[in-house]
Amino acid sequence: MKSINVGLIGAGTVGTGVYKILKDNISLIRKRRQFDVKVKKIADIAPTRKRAVKIPASLFTKDAYDLINDPEIDVIIELVGGTKIAKKFVIDALKAGKHVVTANKALLAHHGKEIFGLAAKKGLGVGFEASVGGGIPIIQSAMEGYVGNNIVSIHGIMNGTSNYILYKMTEEGLDFNTVLKQAQDEGYAEADPGFDIDGVDAAHKLSILVMLSWGKFYKFSSYHVEGIRNINPLDISLADELGYKIKLLAIAKQTKAGIEAGVYPALVKKGTQLADVKEAFNAIYVVGDAVGPTMLYGQGAGMMPTASAVVSDIVEICGNHCNSDSPLVPNLYAEKEKLNLVDLKDTSNKYYLRFEVIDKPGVLGSITGILGKHNISIASMIQKGKKGRSVPIVLMTHEAVENNLLRAIKEIERRKNLTKAKTLFIRVEEI
Amino acid sequence: MKSINVGLIGAGTVGTGVYKILKDNISLIRKRRQFDVKVKKIADIAPTRKRAVKIPASLFTKDAYDLINDPEIDVIIELVGGTKIAKKFVIDALKAGKHVVTANKALLAHHGKEIFGLAAKKGLGVGFEASVGGGIPIIQSAMEGYVGNNIVSIHGIMNGTSNYILYKMTEEGLDFNTVLKQAQDEGYAEADPGFDIDGVDAAHKLSILVMLSWGKFYKFSSYHVEGIRNINPLDISLADELGYKIKLLAIAKQTKAGIEAGVYPALVKKGTQLADVKEAFNAIYVVGDAVGPTMLYGQGAGMMPTASAVVSDIVEICGNHCNSDSPLVPNLYAEKEKLNLVDLKDTSNKYYLRFEVIDKPGVLGSITGILGKHNISIASMIQKGKKGRSVPIVLMTHEAVENNLLRAIKEIERRKNLTKAKTLFIRVEEI
Repeated sequence: MKSINVGLIGAGTVGTGVYKILKDNISLIRKRRQFDVKVKKIADIAPTRKRAVKIPASLFTKDAYDLINDPEIDVIIELVGGTKIAKKFVIDALKAGKHVVTANKALLAHHGKEIFGLAAKKGLGVGFEASVGGGIPIIQSAMEGYVGNNIVSIHGIMNGTSNYILYKMTEEGLDFNTVLKQAQDEGYAEADPGFDIDGVDAAHKLSILVMLSWGKFYKFSSYHVEGIRNINPLDISLADELGYKIKLLAIAKQTKAGIEAGVYPALVKKGTQLADVKEAFNAIYVVGDAVGPTMLYGQGAGMMPTASAVVSDIVEICGNHCNSDSPLVPNLYAEKEKLNLVDLKDTSNKYYLRFEVIDKPGVLGSITGILGKHNISIASMIQKGKKGRSVPIVLMTHEAVENNLLRAIKEIERRKNLTKAKTLFIRVEEI
Repeated sequence: MKSINVGLIGAGTVGTGVYKILKDNISLIRKRRQFDVKVKKIADIAPTRKRAVKIPASLFTKDAYDLINDPEIDVIIELVGGTKIAKKFVIDALKAGKHVVTANKALLAHHGKEIFGLAAKKGLGVGFEASVGGGIPIIQSAMEGYVGNNIVSIHGIMNGTSNYILYKMTEEGLDFNTVLKQAQDEGYAEADPGFDIDGVDAAHKLSILVMLSWGKFYKFSSYHVEGIRNINPLDISLADELGYKIKLLAIAKQTKAGIEAGVYPALVKKGTQLADVKEAFNAIYVVGDAVGPTMLYGQGAGMMPTASAVVSDIVEICGNHCNSDSPLVPNLYAEKEKLNLVDLKDTSNKYYLRFEVIDKPGVLGSITGILGKHNISIASMIQKGKKGRSVPIVLMTHEAVENNLLRAIKEIERRKNLTKAKTLFIRVEEI
């Protein structure tokens, strides 16, 4: 039986999960695929830290290069995270002729082009199933399942923390800060939650799906990224009244203008598969020109789901691609094609607008007048009871160009006698 | 650039779809995977029939063996369906050293063991992504994405026709026959709908997922198969009142006793991902011991979704597995292990029971008494207004052994003074 040696760099939560699967379920892998996988060495700066599973001390080294330079190791698993030392390890592993498996979305979002390019040049595989959607097999599906499809659109709930917070706000009517505090206490949010709630983590994952779906790497800073800090219970309940839920979505669409892509909160119709994604679950809704709409759903994070994805990559790379003439590595085939990342300002969307209107005759007329002047027409309206001297008014628009909307809002806010507070707009996604 | 020649046997709806993708999207496949796929020959008994896409007459032959015996063809795509001639083509193609791609679930359900065994012996791949869930990448996920997982359970909505009928009955309050007629008129059901509405098609697919998940082939006739002909609007509305929807599920679970597997209508909690699968969509909910719960959703049938899966198999087999030392073919590793298919009578479930009770004092007491004697305890009850001299009473049970339930119902029905009609029971699935 063929035997594969892996070297694991970073034995934190996920790394320990990988070790556990390769210990507990290895006989299953042997039977299913007729080859063996051995963890030969583990590099970690804290070999003796407390872990959910006991790992023999003899496996550990503090120096990742003991693995990278070991001629008997076939695959390096990078689970240290971040974009600095992780990048060095991955690049050096590829240079040393090792296949690489990583869960590191930030690394690929920033340096995917360089890493995939080097791997392809060296004829090596790079597995990164764990980088998007935890154990959900979305990377494999995007690369192989949908290979015959022009990808039309992607709508992903790809950050569990944000979905958990919005879900709890919706179910319990609580405000953002209260739920964030709860989520931190329950382990659903980090002490420093910025990457999650500000959309950065979801955008890292989105950029990876864009590379796979359209074959092009865009500088990470060129993606539009918004988080959920501005979402409040009033908007959640008004959206509910209009038949929608608010979700943080990572979205990419191919249009005539190019790729429209970004992360932002959006209104999604109740009763759709995406609207029903609860708690910290993830789901990625992909439309292909042949396959039509599809959705993959599951736990987007956590020790064992993420480890499951890492193990599937090891098996995939070594079972099928070791010694193969087509290693598993994305081909950025559209790098030289003219395929722009469209500025969100130039896209057309439907919008949910909430104005805090001064309660005087003629104000609503002035607002709708200004909107109309900028080619924004109203589909429906809700007016709520007073709070102090202002009244919240929600307008749902027909499709409109975002730049027109921004200009209209600017004009409305410049007129001191119309609104009492900043106008909020949330995009509506029809899926 | 490497070039693969495929031979297509059967140019009906799906075959035409495959031809269309390989014509319209071939440049995408070339760019993504750096190899070419050519349809070299097509065998069809009616070369000139009307098709959605024009196929050059020069590609056609009426003799499948012109393809099977062509040394230049690498992959045979079998899309004729059925288990007789299709089996001969597939076996002979493997014997001739060709990889095989098929959408034929009946063939694999009945002859999977022989086909996979022969392919493995010859070092050839068999692709069958299109056999379950249309374009949904469930086969690849089961074989590769979840490779490191012990599979805990599978709950699939895998027959679009049945789901469409139950969905319409639920949404519109219509009875089975009316909706079936509508579905036939709209093209959602065949003129001869037996395979779909009696659960046979879903059971074919289930048996394939069982082979992949637990490495064992069971005789198709040993699976428990029930359809939806007995579901009526009264039960749908009572289930709704209790917080459930009725879905035709294909279910497999590993328990201490072995594999519990079968196709039957079941009550599923409203608001869950499976309960919300609408119209003719399919979804497969799989729980693995590492990955946890996952679900894959999409169009389970149709020309282009199914063709998308066939194309992904061609690329998968030829991009990664041609000339590889591990061809893509399931290994039935548990054939010699003691892993029984458990008789549903020996399983424990919660049940929805509807009795048509004779409207006299003491009747309900007698019924619950008999249930209690057979170790069946009641969780909740709904009693509805009279219809004639009988009253529908619905009991939801706690978990109970199915054999006990069957005995209790028998005893209740034997007592002439308790019920006016056959007692209906539907299993409740907690997912």
